[in-house]
Amino acid sequence: MATQTHKRIPVAVLGATGMVGQRFIDLLQGHPWFELVALAASEQHGGRAYSEATRWRLPNSEMPTEVASLPVVACRPEALPGVKVVFSALPGEVAGDIEEAFARAGVAVFSNAKNHRMASDVPLLIPEVNADHIAAIAFQRKERGWPGFIITNANCSATPLAMALKPLQDAFGVRKVLLTTLQAISGAGYPGLPSYDILDNVIPYIGGEEEKLESETRKMLGSWQEGQGFVDAPLAVSAHCTRVSTREGHLECASVELEREASPEEIIAVWEGYRPLPQQLGLPSAPEQALIYRREVDRPQTVRDRDAGKGMSAVLGRLRPCPIFSYKFVVLGHNTIRGAAGGSVLNAELCYAQGFLTDL
Amino acid sequence: MATQTHKRIPVAVLGATGMVGQRFIDLLQGHPWFELVALAASEQHGGRAYSEATRWRLPNSEMPTEVASLPVVACRPEALPGVKVVFSALPGEVAGDIEEAFARAGVAVFSNAKNHRMASDVPLLIPEVNADHIAAIAFQRKERGWPGFIITNANCSATPLAMALKPLQDAFGVRKVLLTTLQAISGAGYPGLPSYDILDNVIPYIGGEEEKLESETRKMLGSWQEGQGFVDAPLAVSAHCTRVSTREGHLECASVELEREASPEEIIAVWEGYRPLPQQLGLPSAPEQALIYRREVDRPQTVRDRDAGKGMSAVLGRLRPCPIFSYKFVVLGHNTIRGAAGGSVLNAELCYAQGFLTDL
Amino acid sequence: MATQTHKRIPVAVLGATGMVGQRFIDLLQGHPWFELVALAASEQHGGRAYSEATRWRLPNSEMPTEVASLPVVACRPEALPGVKVVFSALPGEVAGDIEEAFARAGVAVFSNAKNHRMASDVPLLIPEVNADHIAAIAFQRKERGWPGFIITNANCSATPLAMALKPLQDAFGVRKVLLTTLQAISGAGYPGLPSYDILDNVIPYIGGEEEKLESETRKMLGSWQEGQGFVDAPLAVSAHCTRVSTREGHLECASVELEREASPEEIIAVWEGYRPLPQQLGLPSAPEQALIYRREVDRPQTVRDRDAGKGMSAVLGRLRPCPIFSYKFVVLGHNTIRGAAGGSVLNAELCYAQGFLTDL
Amino acid sequence: MATQTHKRIPVAVLGATGMVGQRFIDLLQGHPWFELVALAASEQHGGRAYSEATRWRLPNSEMPTEVASLPVVACRPEALPGVKVVFSALPGEVAGDIEEAFARAGVAVFSNAKNHRMASDVPLLIPEVNADHIAAIAFQRKERGWPGFIITNANCSATPLAMALKPLQDAFGVRKVLLTTLQAISGAGYPGLPSYDILDNVIPYIGGEEEKLESETRKMLGSWQEGQGFVDAPLAVSAHCTRVSTREGHLECASVELEREASPEEIIAVWEGYRPLPQQLGLPSAPEQALIYRREVDRPQTVRDRDAGKGMSAVLGRLRPCPIFSYKFVVLGHNTIRGAAGGSVLNAELCYAQGFLTDL
Repeated sequence: MATQTHKRIPVAVLGATGMVGQRFIDLLQGHPWFELVALAASEQHGGRAYSEATRWRLPNSEMPTEVASLPVVACRPEALPGVKVVFSALPGEVAGDIEEAFARAGVAVFSNAKNHRMASDVPLLIPEVNADHIAAIAFQRKERGWPGFIITNANCSATPLAMALKPLQDAFGVRKVLLTTLQAISGAGYPGLPSYDILDNVIPYIGGEEEKLESETRKMLGSWQEGQGFVDAPLAVSAHCTRVSTREGHLECASVELEREASPEEIIAVWEGYRPLPQQLGLPSAPEQALIYRREVDRPQTVRDRDAGKGMSAVLGRLRPCPIFSYKFVVLGHNTIRGAAGGSVLNAELCYAQGFLTDL
Repeated sequence: MATQTHKRIPVAVLGATGMVGQRFIDLLQGHPWFELVALAASEQHGGRAYSEATRWRLPNSEMPTEVASLPVVACRPEALPGVKVVFSALPGEVAGDIEEAFARAGVAVFSNAKNHRMASDVPLLIPEVNADHIAAIAFQRKERGWPGFIITNANCSATPLAMALKPLQDAFGVRKVLLTTLQAISGAGYPGLPSYDILDNVIPYIGGEEEKLESETRKMLGSWQEGQGFVDAPLAVSAHCTRVSTREGHLECASVELEREASPEEIIAVWEGYRPLPQQLGLPSAPEQALIYRREVDRPQTVRDRDAGKGMSAVLGRLRPCPIFSYKFVVLGHNTIRGAAGGSVLNAELCYAQGFLTDL
Repeated sequence: MATQTHKRIPVAVLGATGMVGQRFIDLLQGHPWFELVALAASEQHGGRAYSEATRWRLPNSEMPTEVASLPVVACRPEALPGVKVVFSALPGEVAGDIEEAFARAGVAVFSNAKNHRMASDVPLLIPEVNADHIAAIAFQRKERGWPGFIITNANCSATPLAMALKPLQDAFGVRKVLLTTLQAISGAGYPGLPSYDILDNVIPYIGGEEEKLESETRKMLGSWQEGQGFVDAPLAVSAHCTRVSTREGHLECASVELEREASPEEIIAVWEGYRPLPQQLGLPSAPEQALIYRREVDRPQTVRDRDAGKGMSAVLGRLRPCPIFSYKFVVLGHNTIRGAAGGSVLNAELCYAQGFLTDL
Repeated sequence: MATQTHKRIPVAVLGATGMVGQRFIDLLQGHPWFELVALAASEQHGGRAYSEATRWRLPNSEMPTEVASLPVVACRPEALPGVKVVFSALPGEVAGDIEEAFARAGVAVFSNAKNHRMASDVPLLIPEVNADHIAAIAFQRKERGWPGFIITNANCSATPLAMALKPLQDAFGVRKVLLTTLQAISGAGYPGLPSYDILDNVIPYIGGEEEKLESETRKMLGSWQEGQGFVDAPLAVSAHCTRVSTREGHLECASVELEREASPEEIIAVWEGYRPLPQQLGLPSAPEQALIYRREVDRPQTVRDRDAGKGMSAVLGRLRPCPIFSYKFVVLGHNTIRGAAGGSVLNAELCYAQGFLTDL
């Protein structure tokens, strides 16, 4: 990556007081391209300092002093003058309208909310998976008459799955994937899951999650066809989603049916050799290895592997033949970093590197 | 069931000091047909009183006073004179030879060990699933020249799966089942899993478990053919086994392919109407309902449902269409009761009720 | 206890939808003296059936069918005609006024709320500790002009402490007690503690708990002096309260300074020989042993001992000399049974047995 | 600190395969003064490569490539030629003799084992607490005729307590401290505590821990008197030790009796202004702040504060009056870093900085 000599781009976080908002703030500290200049949240905070409006909840980290005294402003474009890029950690109940208002006002919106993910002109973007979907932005801006645009990151459980499948799709074709997720409590936000519901327990249900995992995976592994829009991958996905007693890290047990035969060695080689665009470009938040394959018989494990690549890698293991489909394997991703704030920061870096943030 | 007027049958527990051994003792307290008269374990205990040889580990229960002063004898038939029925909680390293020695000595062995489960003349028995496999005993005794016999219960994760599938197989046929298990730490015995390995963690590997789950399920859902032996069910099984941070209860997320079409209502009706032999016979340890279907959107849950039917029922829920196979569902079973000691006690009750324990 | 030939007394639960309310319902099922005839909660439930207004949360138990169809009425005396005894599981924000309204209307109120616990004319009652405080009722009724009355049970962490100290006070005198509590998450109610706050964590703070523990203990171990009111015990109490990752059971590590010398054997004898009024009277909810002393070096333990005496006993252990005070010991009590609903049911039973419920 | 221009000192780890041994290796990676050149453990490993002899267990870290191929040699001085400094993570069963053999052979031993901690000529050293105890080394070498010497770090629960008390002792005098510890499972080593023993549980007993905590604290807060030896501080200590379900971090609730009156502000000022020798010298492993006082009402918390100062700070909070002694407070320390390997590395750094490692 060329050294950064220009001035950093001023950015803001929408929904800055919640857990994903805090992750955005944490990840933007000292960012080489983006300068966090403003924080926005619901009107109830009415201009109070961030340190007064927020209880910092990230473990092993303190509220950065740079943001403690920033006022928490309303989530309206006019409250954020000069800001051309926003990261949205807004809840689904309000994200839809607010994000559109910013795009309409000429702002690039990188969103973690679910609202626009499946829209026919909004990229559901993982730079390692479908960087070419970024082409939909031109269509989106034209179609909607927006000077800005919206790009979303994927659901936290769909992200590691798509990262694991993409190189398999490219090399061997993927017909079917049937998986069970074992998801961390932080995926439910804060306060999220009552402790009495999960201690010594498994909850085999997460509202809407199975549907999202199934549809988002097909969209991301599909293609953007000029004049036709997004075309889903011809891939059957079936998900069982469960909540288990872990803090961070979604672990997924998947069985996959490939189109062409492949040996375990070939598959592992494809995963380990995977070096997609973010790694080629050296994006600041891109992990050295997008995919890490563990050869130990019992890895990846949630507590031991979730922080690999600073929480931005997907960690794989246990590739073995499946009696029903081609192979079984395990994949793990950090849900509040790669599967949320980190994913959107990487999306913004890709846009920056490809010149999409310069004409705003 | 007719009232029990005869004298109770004297029984013993092999491997009485471990966790499954303790469960056997607990379940045999006040049993209407069996009288626990002796305890056996490894020679190291050399005749010490049970209360000295053992630390009682079952939660919410105390060592029964009746057994506290019993001497712990060696696992040899001659050390257990007059005992015609033994329950084996022996570890796999020693169970094979010891159990055969007892059968050779004319004792009926009801075993929780894995050693003989897949033998071609040993029933792998769940009374609600394959009571007819008991017919193999006559062949076993003749073939091996044993006056006694061996009957095994199934692996703790295979048990609730087989119970869930059997009525589906009878009503609609089952072609394929692909599942992920979320298994409790007690499944690893004691001391078993180090706490540092599982707190805030998932371990997506249990040695040998996936193979056992796959092969045992096919055997149990298969048939015993006179002159031909056990014939596996024509059913493809693929399992992912994981360990999670729960004390008891194995929860399983399964996708199943049926041979014939069935509506969700029909399937639930088949499960709820299931009334197999143990329930017909009113066996003392048989739960009122072998299968319980929960209609809540997020049930069964490990901590809330594992004790249903005193730990002897399998609890089902979340039946819904699968995008790849016919249906997805969740099933839960108590691993140290139904999936271990309780399973073998029920096996012995079935044998008793059908007259197999009278001629020993 | 004489057999109960009279009609059972009709009772109601206030705050019936929460966790303590559910415990009340659970404990009143099949009660020999009380018949649960009505359920009340906040007006928002507006007469809906209990099964519609409530999600049953007690583990290993189902909503009793007898209450499922009961309408949830408002917490006003006129909405509960014919009810002369209510059990209050109301939150502190509303309990004060509501409970007074019932007492004013002639109802006996047995409350788990904190509001009236420290009032100068309200018994803070543990039948095994200060049954004689019940004498304050006559004063309360006269003073306030109420045909009914209010009796409260103690805070969940104060209860096992007071039970442990009372026999020591009687036998040896108690000057000081300094303790640390390790309290279960259910003590915070439902939804209570977010899971992300407690998994792999200890929170060394529970708002208001240390103050309650200190003041309630002094009141309960004190005396009711006719014409003078409640006189605190001359006992210094200092508490550190922490929240740990357990479902039920408050464990407390205490150092105690006695007035007179006593050997460990004498202390244990006093505890084990303790047979206060509820046990003498054979009250239906009284455990056989109010205090159980465990001689193992590492007991009591939360998960293993909390259900002793169906959750109504206090379990003691580890008595040993303290380098600073006389002795150290550990005590454990079930917080949602003995320390909440069970405590109030036992209070009502004591009142019944002593004739306080007949003239309402 | 002057820049390090000399060659690094070659060091080895004894007991390199266990959890504390792994922490030593982790902390010595890239150390400016020490170069890890050899690894030793029990003879059973017989010269195998470290990567074959060891399963790396530290979360979020991999076995350093520099050590993976090192042979694991025996714990004998002749097997470690050229090594003048060893860090001992040996278990108590063998540490005594082995450590003495090394000291006798002219090696400086920095030990985490308990064996020599209370010896009358061995410093029990926390550089922030009793750096002057290092003077005992000259006596130890002369008395025992050893060219080398042994220095121990304190028990993991005694360490944060001593750090919290030392500045209070200096400023106000400390007469008594009564505390309860809530200790993490990693304190029991690996495999250590069975998971079935601790999930949903508290164990109010840790063998030998209370005695160690009491005696070590008095030694560390005492003085080294030339010609007289170690003189215990005139301080009464009483400890209750418990095990809770946390991975790392020992949290302690303490009540302290001071000799002189002090306001909360004065105490907090003393803690926050504490800047002992390691911080003055800028030792590489010394945290910027030895003591961190949190002003939030509910801190420190185990999961949120254990990593403060890279696990080398003690974190304080909740200072408030005690109804019995002067004050109550909470202190937290990382048990496997500051309370074990990190403590000994800091001890070695202090010795290096003060010239004790140059004449070996």
